[in-house]
Amino acid sequence: MSPAVVLLSGGLDSAVTLAIAIAEGYVPYALSLQYGQRHRVEIESARRLAESLRVHDHRVAQIDLRVFGGSALTDDIAVPQQRSAEEMAEGIPITYVPARNTIFLSYALAWAEVLGASDIFIGVNAVDYSGYPDCRPKFLRAFEDLAAVATKAGLSGTRFEIHAPLLQLSKADIIRKGADLGINFGVTHSCYDPAQDGAACGVCDSCQLRLAGFRDAGLTDPIRYVSK
Amino acid sequence: MSPAVVLLSGGLDSAVTLAIAIAEGYVPYALSLQYGQRHRVEIESARRLAESLRVHDHRVAQIDLRVFGGSALTDDIAVPQQRSAEEMAEGIPITYVPARNTIFLSYALAWAEVLGASDIFIGVNAVDYSGYPDCRPKFLRAFEDLAAVATKAGLSGTRFEIHAPLLQLSKADIIRKGADLGINFGVTHSCYDPAQDGAACGVCDSCQLRLAGFRDAGLTDPIRYVSK
Repeated sequence: MSPAVVLLSGGLDSAVTLAIAIAEGYVPYALSLQYGQRHRVEIESARRLAESLRVHDHRVAQIDLRVFGGSALTDDIAVPQQRSAEEMAEGIPITYVPARNTIFLSYALAWAEVLGASDIFIGVNAVDYSGYPDCRPKFLRAFEDLAAVATKAGLSGTRFEIHAPLLQLSKADIIRKGADLGINFGVTHSCYDPAQDGAACGVCDSCQLRLAGFRDAGLTDPIRYVSK
Repeated sequence: MSPAVVLLSGGLDSAVTLAIAIAEGYVPYALSLQYGQRHRVEIESARRLAESLRVHDHRVAQIDLRVFGGSALTDDIAVPQQRSAEEMAEGIPITYVPARNTIFLSYALAWAEVLGASDIFIGVNAVDYSGYPDCRPKFLRAFEDLAAVATKAGLSGTRFEIHAPLLQLSKADIIRKGADLGINFGVTHSCYDPAQDGAACGVCDSCQLRLAGFRDAGLTDPIRYVSK
């Protein structure tokens, strides 16, 4: 039973990633990184998921990405809505946060080193998020190479492994996988722009991808939507 | 005149690094990352340095490394004092913060990408801090390789460069260099364990290295010490 650090946003993808880490026999240490204003609801989801999946420990770190600006997820610029699949597939989305996964994995690496863990799980996906440079296999391999030389543990021969079990899965595959593993999707959250009461908007890129995924998987999404 | 992000702790090394970036003709954007409890004084030094060296912009981001523990600089364990040079040279010091420079450079990379900058300066040193894995040239090169694949800018062909102009300098060399560039050492700060009134302890590793550096450079350190 090896410890593993699992990045847990509270979103659907990270929930399935956590369930996979547990199914693979790791002792899960969940790490949630709170940034910007839009994702407070996600942290609450993360707490409920961590509890329901009985993680060994759950830490929440505040990180301040708004200080730099540069993304719809951290700035006050509007989240794009009702874009077509073609528009979403084109180029890098405005919701791209500069160096986000680099920062996330750096924090995960710090905790892994403290715990003596060499395994880190992250729910990145190269299918739906093909526009994000830091969701690509070559980024993950470059981070492993960095971790090997960046740490005391690496100097002692530890080879950190970044697990991205969703990397090549479609959203429907991810949802089916999560359903097989018994995830309660009702506590997961994906919307970039939730209403005051926590209901998902139903129109942002993330809601559209989620809703299409449930449709393709032949399942019903149990979360509340303003419209869908 | 290219923009460059300069990591500025408020310590002596980062002050000299900033002065070098300016002397090399970069437009400096200073970034201070505040973590743990011990370094509040450093941030005040950073503010004064940024002002005196007229940086183009100075951002301070709070980062929460205490959430993981694992180092004398972020935990409540005592900072080692009055160790000999031999003891300091042995192994990795207790003041090592897991993945610290990886996290710092990740934030610098995020801001660089927002600014359209491809140059990042960091005051790491492989002479006095030989025990820190993330102060080695191979770490810096691995981070450059990561940055190339981690960012939108990298995808567009930007090659980020991590400048570490102090890497091979002794503390005395760094101090001489700073003196040549007109640094006011009175506003820099190095102590791991300052007194309530901000005076340096004079006995921690960092104070000892600093005091020895001034002695070797034949200069007088203008900051206040509890004892030296």
